Amino acid sequence: MSESREARGSSGGRGEGEEIAQERPLLEHFERAGCGLPPWIRVGPGDDMAEIKLDSRVIQLAVDQVIEGRHFIRGTPESQIAWKALARNLSDVAAMAVRPKAILAACTLPADWAKARAAALFEALRQAALEWECPLIGGDLAMHGGREPLHLAVTILAEPWPEWRDQPAITRRGAREGDGLFVTGALGGSFRPDGFGRHLAFEPRVFEARELRRHLGDRLHAMIDLSDGLGRDAAALAPEDGQVRLFADQVPCAESCSLMNALSDGEDYELCFAAAGEVPPSLSDRFGRPVPITRIGVLQRRAPGEARCVIDIDGTLVDASNLGWEHTGRSESAHDGP
Amino acid sequence: MSESREARGSSGGRGEGEEIAQERPLLEHFERAGCGLPPWIRVGPGDDMAEIKLDSRVIQLAVDQVIEGRHFIRGTPESQIAWKALARNLSDVAAMAVRPKAILAACTLPADWAKARAAALFEALRQAALEWECPLIGGDLAMHGGREPLHLAVTILAEPWPEWRDQPAITRRGAREGDGLFVTGALGGSFRPDGFGRHLAFEPRVFEARELRRHLGDRLHAMIDLSDGLGRDAAALAPEDGQVRLFADQVPCAESCSLMNALSDGEDYELCFAAAGEVPPSLSDRFGRPVPITRIGVLQRRAPGEARCVIDIDGTLVDASNLGWEHTGRSESAHDGP
Repeated sequence: MSESREARGSSGGRGEGEEIAQERPLLEHFERAGCGLPPWIRVGPGDDMAEIKLDSRVIQLAVDQVIEGRHFIRGTPESQIAWKALARNLSDVAAMAVRPKAILAACTLPADWAKARAAALFEALRQAALEWECPLIGGDLAMHGGREPLHLAVTILAEPWPEWRDQPAITRRGAREGDGLFVTGALGGSFRPDGFGRHLAFEPRVFEARELRRHLGDRLHAMIDLSDGLGRDAAALAPEDGQVRLFADQVPCAESCSLMNALSDGEDYELCFAAAGEVPPSLSDRFGRPVPITRIGVLQRRAPGEARCVIDIDGTLVDASNLGWEHTGRSESAHDGP
Repeated sequence: MSESREARGSSGGRGEGEEIAQERPLLEHFERAGCGLPPWIRVGPGDDMAEIKLDSRVIQLAVDQVIEGRHFIRGTPESQIAWKALARNLSDVAAMAVRPKAILAACTLPADWAKARAAALFEALRQAALEWECPLIGGDLAMHGGREPLHLAVTILAEPWPEWRDQPAITRRGAREGDGLFVTGALGGSFRPDGFGRHLAFEPRVFEARELRRHLGDRLHAMIDLSDGLGRDAAALAPEDGQVRLFADQVPCAESCSLMNALSDGEDYELCFAAAGEVPPSLSDRFGRPVPITRIGVLQRRAPGEARCVIDIDGTLVDASNLGWEHTGRSESAHDGP
């Protein structure tokens, strides 16, 4: 179960606090759905993808939605909407270190969308999916009665890369005390004040994840993609009795971004992983494109009552577990819905 | 690629004619996506479900969405919304004569939904899915900024029943000249003028489809579930050079429904299938519940320019291929959106 990053853009007569109070219990409710599930469900709600076993065959499934006025502003080119809808899902596939296989799309169009525009959206989705060897195999199409926002939900099917055939994917669970915490790329500022920016054009780290798994093998313990903000996403990698400790001076900030941006902006779609032992930065040479790997923290034991993710800022520990949620700096510009 | 039945409820400043003109070409666009796909995609866009092969393993996938004010009115109980979202997908699984395996849900909630209400929706979906041995394994949750309509997209994964392991599903293609055309149940009036009715509580014909396939074997040539209306859905079973000829006096109408209701109301979620040879009505005794089977037509050769589906009304042939689309009788009552 993933959660669309909805802190941004709220203007519907609800405070941010109330929105959070609503979504978190609901997510927990969803995640409880994982209790009592049959054993062929290897990973249920609460990770980047679900993983199931069909006899000996392992597959992964996830769904992610983009909504006009929430995940992109009205006026965003169709090709970028399609790309974001696909790429968010590919990023989930990357986080599990598996291979994208096929997508389905469920789309509801505003009534005022011209036919050519809708055709451009589907064609962009179809083409991008084909380029990723992850074809569009089906879907559902509906029209709104009025100008309700465009809604596009993409379901993605994945499978292990051939070298890990029938082996489980890399999940969010598995980090251990003493592991290092690492990220790819640079963080923050993905969703620009004008509504555009990297969040519409990022490259999912599908191949980087494969290289990491190849090189690190069993030392790669847990992984997530950064969509909600580093603070909150890193916290999700902490085991029950564990804590992620981030080092402020190690976090790679994107150009003209502050540490706070890097921690809480979200929509980075970079990989964040826990691994034992050394992960040489030169490993990134294998990626074939300039995507740095940076060690930004460690996994340590958590005392009762302590946060799951703290950041060490010049020796002062700050709870970072909720960063990514209270951030509202982009609300006005990002919200263009009814 | 299926198409949500959107003729109803339009009040967004567009005529019905324009809406149809928009959706049909888009669907064709989607279905063209099936061209040039790799051979492991056995059924692409344009059928009830996509079917793919992973080595020797065959699986099916589909997605279907329900939207407040379109597929159910505002004020519909959460349990019925959840059921409809699941059951529409189960009906697609029935149409392929396969076995439901797991679902994923992508939901966007209106901002004014109370937490308890949202929890009731998910709990109803989770429970209903478990009862069908088709557990909820993952999903995505977002909140609207305002009172935009509730949106719930459910993706369903299916697999062959054990007796047809690794064999292809029953698709819409395969009907032959001379086949009889049959339906289960009685048709029409599913979506009542007050917005309630059978469309919220129907029983997907999953087990009936299995029994039909068991009994008919290779004589079961093609199948679809009736969601858009008998006229249009039956037309989808006609092969390239074929025509479905319906007999008006044979069509089983639901209580207080006219032939026109049965042909065009849609949302029946009954099975419509083409089969060679006899299909005794007594076959329905195997269903374990009172679901009649009725022979309503035949597959015949189509001359160029003729319709794909005609209905014989006292010897007069009427084009029925588009019935289910122009129907707007329920618009006002069914529409409660913004």
